[in-house]
Amino acid sequence: MTTTSIQMRSLFQPESVAVIGASSSPGKIGYKILNNIISSGYQGKIFAVNPRGGEILGLNAFTHVSDIDSQPDVAVVAVPASRVFEVIVDCARRGVKFATVISSGFSEVGNLEEERKIVKYAREYGMRILGPNIFGHFSSVVSLNATFGPRDIPSGNVAIITQSGALGVAMIGKTSVQKIGLSTIISVGNKADLDESDLLDYLRDDPGTQAVLMYIEGIRDGGRLINSLVKTTRDKPIIVLKSGRSKKGAIAAASHTGSLAGSDDIFDAIMKQCGVLRAENIQEALNWCKYISNAPRPSGENTLIVTNGGGVGVMATDACEKFGVPLYEDKQRLSEEFSAVTHGFGSTKNPIDITGEASVGEYTSALDTALNDGKIHAVIALYCETAMMTSEELSKMVIEQNQKYQHQKKPIIFSLFGGSLTEEAVSRLIEHQVPVYTEVYESISPLGALFRFLRYGRKTEEFIREPEIDSQLIKTVIAETRKDNRQFLLAHEAQTLLRAIGLAGPNSRVVKTIGETVDAAEEIGYPVVMKVVSRDIIHKSDVGGVLLNLENPHEVMDAYQTIIHNCKSFRRNAIIDGIEIVEQVPKGTEVIIGARQDKSFGPVIMFGLGGIYVEVLKDVAFRALPVSHQEAQMMVRDIRSYTMLMGLRGEKRKDIDGIVDAILRVGAVCRQFPEITDIEINPMMVYDQGSGVKAIDVRILLSKSERNT
Amino acid sequence: MTTTSIQMRSLFQPESVAVIGASSSPGKIGYKILNNIISSGYQGKIFAVNPRGGEILGLNAFTHVSDIDSQPDVAVVAVPASRVFEVIVDCARRGVKFATVISSGFSEVGNLEEERKIVKYAREYGMRILGPNIFGHFSSVVSLNATFGPRDIPSGNVAIITQSGALGVAMIGKTSVQKIGLSTIISVGNKADLDESDLLDYLRDDPGTQAVLMYIEGIRDGGRLINSLVKTTRDKPIIVLKSGRSKKGAIAAASHTGSLAGSDDIFDAIMKQCGVLRAENIQEALNWCKYISNAPRPSGENTLIVTNGGGVGVMATDACEKFGVPLYEDKQRLSEEFSAVTHGFGSTKNPIDITGEASVGEYTSALDTALNDGKIHAVIALYCETAMMTSEELSKMVIEQNQKYQHQKKPIIFSLFGGSLTEEAVSRLIEHQVPVYTEVYESISPLGALFRFLRYGRKTEEFIREPEIDSQLIKTVIAETRKDNRQFLLAHEAQTLLRAIGLAGPNSRVVKTIGETVDAAEEIGYPVVMKVVSRDIIHKSDVGGVLLNLENPHEVMDAYQTIIHNCKSFRRNAIIDGIEIVEQVPKGTEVIIGARQDKSFGPVIMFGLGGIYVEVLKDVAFRALPVSHQEAQMMVRDIRSYTMLMGLRGEKRKDIDGIVDAILRVGAVCRQFPEITDIEINPMMVYDQGSGVKAIDVRILLSKSERNT
Repeated sequence: MTTTSIQMRSLFQPESVAVIGASSSPGKIGYKILNNIISSGYQGKIFAVNPRGGEILGLNAFTHVSDIDSQPDVAVVAVPASRVFEVIVDCARRGVKFATVISSGFSEVGNLEEERKIVKYAREYGMRILGPNIFGHFSSVVSLNATFGPRDIPSGNVAIITQSGALGVAMIGKTSVQKIGLSTIISVGNKADLDESDLLDYLRDDPGTQAVLMYIEGIRDGGRLINSLVKTTRDKPIIVLKSGRSKKGAIAAASHTGSLAGSDDIFDAIMKQCGVLRAENIQEALNWCKYISNAPRPSGENTLIVTNGGGVGVMATDACEKFGVPLYEDKQRLSEEFSAVTHGFGSTKNPIDITGEASVGEYTSALDTALNDGKIHAVIALYCETAMMTSEELSKMVIEQNQKYQHQKKPIIFSLFGGSLTEEAVSRLIEHQVPVYTEVYESISPLGALFRFLRYGRKTEEFIREPEIDSQLIKTVIAETRKDNRQFLLAHEAQTLLRAIGLAGPNSRVVKTIGETVDAAEEIGYPVVMKVVSRDIIHKSDVGGVLLNLENPHEVMDAYQTIIHNCKSFRRNAIIDGIEIVEQVPKGTEVIIGARQDKSFGPVIMFGLGGIYVEVLKDVAFRALPVSHQEAQMMVRDIRSYTMLMGLRGEKRKDIDGIVDAILRVGAVCRQFPEITDIEINPMMVYDQGSGVKAIDVRILLSKSERNT
Repeated sequence: MTTTSIQMRSLFQPESVAVIGASSSPGKIGYKILNNIISSGYQGKIFAVNPRGGEILGLNAFTHVSDIDSQPDVAVVAVPASRVFEVIVDCARRGVKFATVISSGFSEVGNLEEERKIVKYAREYGMRILGPNIFGHFSSVVSLNATFGPRDIPSGNVAIITQSGALGVAMIGKTSVQKIGLSTIISVGNKADLDESDLLDYLRDDPGTQAVLMYIEGIRDGGRLINSLVKTTRDKPIIVLKSGRSKKGAIAAASHTGSLAGSDDIFDAIMKQCGVLRAENIQEALNWCKYISNAPRPSGENTLIVTNGGGVGVMATDACEKFGVPLYEDKQRLSEEFSAVTHGFGSTKNPIDITGEASVGEYTSALDTALNDGKIHAVIALYCETAMMTSEELSKMVIEQNQKYQHQKKPIIFSLFGGSLTEEAVSRLIEHQVPVYTEVYESISPLGALFRFLRYGRKTEEFIREPEIDSQLIKTVIAETRKDNRQFLLAHEAQTLLRAIGLAGPNSRVVKTIGETVDAAEEIGYPVVMKVVSRDIIHKSDVGGVLLNLENPHEVMDAYQTIIHNCKSFRRNAIIDGIEIVEQVPKGTEVIIGARQDKSFGPVIMFGLGGIYVEVLKDVAFRALPVSHQEAQMMVRDIRSYTMLMGLRGEKRKDIDGIVDAILRVGAVCRQFPEITDIEINPMMVYDQGSGVKAIDVRILLSKSERNT
C-alpha cells in the first residue's frame, strides 16, 4: 500500500490530534504526550480520550474515540498492548487517518500476530499505522511534539528517522545541546506499516527539511527503500547511521556471493550506490547533518587551507586526503595572491601559512583574498591559539567573515585549537551558527561529506535498459528442474541458461559413437576436453571419465575408448548417454560474477577477480539490481585489483566491456526471475580487449517454491 | 654525545635558572618567560640577564652572564638570533649545563651554519642545547614554567614533547581545558642538539610521568629514537601524533622496497614495532593520554558492555571490533549472573542490556555484578538518556561506582549520551576524574589503546641474534664492485653475496667448451637453462643468448652451439667468456624480501608476496632492523595475503621458516654493511613446508662513497 506525499501530510501537518490513553498522572506516558502536545504550541484541535472521562490537563476527556465530534487526522495510541487492537478498531471506524502506536509488546517480543491483525484492520479503513513501539513524532511546521521525550525541541531543518526509540529520545537532547534544529523526528519502531520509505516520500517534498538523518537497525523492504533513497538524495542529503557492522553477522552460504553478501559491506555498497552518506558514529552523523543542511553549494571542489600554525596545517592536509577534499594546487597563482598576506616564515603553498605572528587584520586579509578568488571554491580556516589575537577579536573576525561571504556559494569551515579563551570563542561562534570545530579532523570530515553528496547529484541519471534475454528458454530450463524436484541446475541446464542470457560458455557437443568424435572435435577446434555424460557417474574425474588436452584425431579416438573403458570398469551397468567434447578454453584473467536474492535488499550483484582475490582478499564490489551501464562500469573500477584488468607489465588491457556486458546479463536474469536465488559464474575468463569473455563454470540455485517469497 | 638520565635532571629539576634577554616590557618574550618562571612558584634561584641591567620584575638584572654569582643549571636564551652565539659562548664559559634557545632564525630558515656553530661550541664545554626555535619547557616537579606560553599549567602525569612550538602553546591551553595535567611539556624545535631520544631517557625514569605524548614532524636519528622508544614503551605508554601522512610524500625509487618505504606506512610499521600508540588526530591522542595515564592495568582483556539502550549497545559492539577490544562471550555464565538485573525485554548477552526502564539501583546492581566477576577484566558502561534517572542520580552513581572499584585492577569507561542534563552529569564526572565520554566510539578507542599498550608489554623480549654471514666474502664482493667504480652488483657478484649470507640461488656452472656442458648439466640436474656470459652482450635474451627448458644431453649440446652462433651473428667480435648452465627452478609461491637504508630510520626490511601483491596491492610489511626471530615471524603474518602461505585449496603450507630465515639473513647484511643501500630479492620462490626457499633474482646497490653517511 503506497501513500502519496500529499496524504502523508496529515501525519506531519494534522488539523487535529487525539491522544488515546491520555492521563492526568504525570508519571504516565499518556500524560507526558498530551502535555508535550499542549505545551509545544500546536494550534490544531487536541482531543484527550480516557475511558474514565473527566478533565485532563484542562481538556474535557472523551470516554471513547467515537464520541469525538470530528475526525482526528492523527490518533496517538498510548494504551496497554492488549487494548491496542480495540482502540485501532475505534479509530479506523471514526475515520482517523494516522494512528501512531506508542505501546510496546508486539513483534519486538514475538507477538507478530497481534501486530499484523492491527495493520490489516487499519488498512481496510485506509488508516495508516506508525509503530508500534515508538516514542511518537515531532513536526516543527505545526509545532507538534507528539512524543513522550523532552518537551522543548528546537526547530530547524534536519529530519531524523530513528528505529530505536531510546536513542531517539536521547538524540532530541543531544541535537538541542549541539544547536541542531529539527524539522521533524520520527520513531518508526517495529515498522508494522509505515516505514522509512513512506517517510522519505514526504520529507523529499518538505521545504522545511534540508537533511535527513536515519538511524537503522534492520531493513525490511530494501527494494522500496533503495527507490526512495535514490529519489531523495538527488536533492537532499541523507545521512545514515547503521549499527551492526561487526563481522559476526556474516552468514554461512554456499556461494561466494552469498557468504560475502552477509557482511556489512553490501549495506555499505548499496548506500553508496544510492548516494547516501553513511556515518560511522553518532557525532560524525550529527556533524554532517548540521553542516550540510546549512552550507552553501559550491561550484567546484578547489579547497584552500588558511592557517596560522604549521602543525595544524599539515594535519589538515592529511585529513583532506582522508576525507576526499581536493586541495587547490596552482602554486604560482597562490604565491602571487598570498605573498602579500604571509609573513617571512610563512608559506603561500596550500596550506597558506600566515604564521603565529599574524594579527587579526592579517588573518582577515588572507580570508578576504581566498574568498574573493574565483578559482577557490571552499575554504578551511585553521587557528592555533596565539597571544596575537584575543578570544573576542578572533570570534568577531570569524563571525564577520562568515557573514560577509554568506551570499557567495563558498563553504567555509573554521577549526579553532586552544585553551579556554578559544573555547569561549567557539561557543560564541556556535551561537552565531558558524560552522566551527575544535579538532582539525572533525572539521574537515563534514566538507568531505558535502562534496560526496554533491558529486552524487552530478552523476548523470541513466535510463536503465537491461539487455534482452531469452525468457522463454529460461522458463523452460527452470520448469525442467522443478519437474525433477531439484533446486539446482545440472551442468547442461546451466549452460543452456547461460546461452539464454546471451553469454558464451565453452563450445561443446555430445557424441554417441566413436565415429562422430573427430568431426565434433574439429568443429570445436583442438585442443579439446572429453567428459563422460552419465547420470550414474557423479564424480567424473575420479573414475577417469574426463581427459584433457587432446590435440588430434588420434588422441580423440583413443580418449573415447579410454573413457568408456574407465567408466565401465568403475560401474559395469552404468548407462552412458554419450561423451561430451568440450572446447579447451585458453587461459585468461579469471573473474567472478554472482547475483542473488538478498534478504534485505532483494536482487544484488557482485563482481570481483577470481581465485585468491575473492577467497583471500575479499576484493569484490556489490550493487543492488538493476544497475545501469555506467554503474556496472563503476563496479568494475571499484575493486582494489582493478589495475590488473588495465594490463600490468606490458600486458594488454582486458575486455572490460565484455565484463560489463556479462554483469548486466547476469543481473537481468536474477532481477527478472526472483526464483533464481543464486547465480554465480566462477571463473569467467576475460581476454584482451576486443576478445571477449567466456563463462567457464556456473552454479545456479532455485528457491524452494516456485514463487520466491 | 649521550647524556644520562641523571644528567638530564638538571634540565627538569634545575637548582637555578637564568633568563638571558629578560625584559620588563610585557610585550616581549623575555618578559613573558621571566614572569612565568617567577609566578609559577619555582623555588630555585632565578637570574635575569639584560645588557642594560636595572630591575626586572623585582629582580636585579645582571648585565652579563659572567656576572652571575653562581653557575645556573639552565639558561633560557631569548635574544635575537644574531646575538645567540655570543650568549652561548658566555653561558658555556660560565658552566651552564643546559641552554634552552627560544630564539628562531636558524635552520628553519636555512641558517644551519649558525646552529651548528652554537652546538659545536656548547659541546666543547659539555653544555647541551634545547632548540633553537622553541617556546621553552615546563617541569611540574619543580613548578618551573620556563615557556612564553600560558602562565598556569595544571600539574599531572602526562609529558608532552612537541616539535611545533605553536601547536605546543595551544596544546597547553587545550590540555588545561580538558583537565589533563602535565608533568612536563617540552618544545624541541630544530633539535640542533637534544632530541626526543634524550628527553625520553629522562622521562622513562621520571616517577611523575605516566604517559608521553609526542608530536613529530620529522625524524633525524631514527635508529636512536627506536632504541629509546623500545626501552620506554616496556613500562610507559608513548602516544605519537605524526602529521604528513598524505601520499604526496612518497618518493620515487629504484626498488619496490624503496618506493613503498617512502610512504607513511613505514613510520606506522616501526611505531608498532616499538610498541608506540599512534593516534590519528589530536583529540584521539589526548583521550588516550588522559585515559591510559590513569587507568588501572587489568589482568586480562575480557570486556563487558553494560547498557540501558540497545542502539548504543550495538554501536559499542561495532566500536569494540574496530578498536580491538575483545568482548567476553560465555553466554551461559552471563545469563546466570545477569538475569536478575535485566528486565524482560533486556538481554544477558554481551552487551548486557538492562533497558531504558532500568532505575539507578538496577544500573548499580548490574555494574556491581560485572565488577565483582573475576572473569571480567574491563567494563564499558553506556547510558542513553531516559526519564528513569536524573542527572544527579546518574552522576552520583557513576562517581560512587568508579570510586568503589578503583582498588580493583579493572578499567571502567563511561559513555553518556543525551541532552543538557547528561552534559551536566558529564562535566561533574570529569571534575571527579572519571573516564567519561559523550560518544560511544570515542569512549572505546582509549580502552583499545590501553590493551594494545599492555599487549606490547607482555611480548617476550627476545635476545636478537643475527644469523652468521660470511663478512669476509661480502667485503671482497663489495671491494671488487668499488674497484670497478660501480654502485650496483653484477649478477654473479650478487649471487656470491647471496651465498655469503647463506641463501641459496639457482645452482649454476659456467662452461667454456661444449665438452663440459653435459657433465655440468647432469650435476645440476635437468631441466636446465643456458645463458651466454659476455660483457659485450647486455640484453642476452634479445639476441638468442638464453635458452630455457633443456631436458637432456642432446638438447644441452645443441643449445651450446645455438647460443654461440646467435651471439656471433649478433656481434662478430663479441668476447664470450663462457656459457652459464643454470638450474631451471621449479615454480613456487613468489615472495619479495627487500632491505634498505632508510633516510629517517636507518636499515629497514620489507616482506611481501611477489608480483601483483607488491605491485598492485602494496601488501607488504616493514620493520626496522635488527629484527628478532619472533618479529620476523610477525612480519610474515602481518601481510593481508598471509593465508596464501598457509596453503589454500588443499595446497600444503609453505615453508614459512625458510622465509623467516631469509628475512633475518637479508636483514643481517643490510644492518652490518651500511654501504649496501638496497638489497632486494624478487622473486624468491617458496616451496612447501620443509622444502625451503630459493632466491631467483637479487638486486644490490651500494652507496656512493665507501662509508655510507
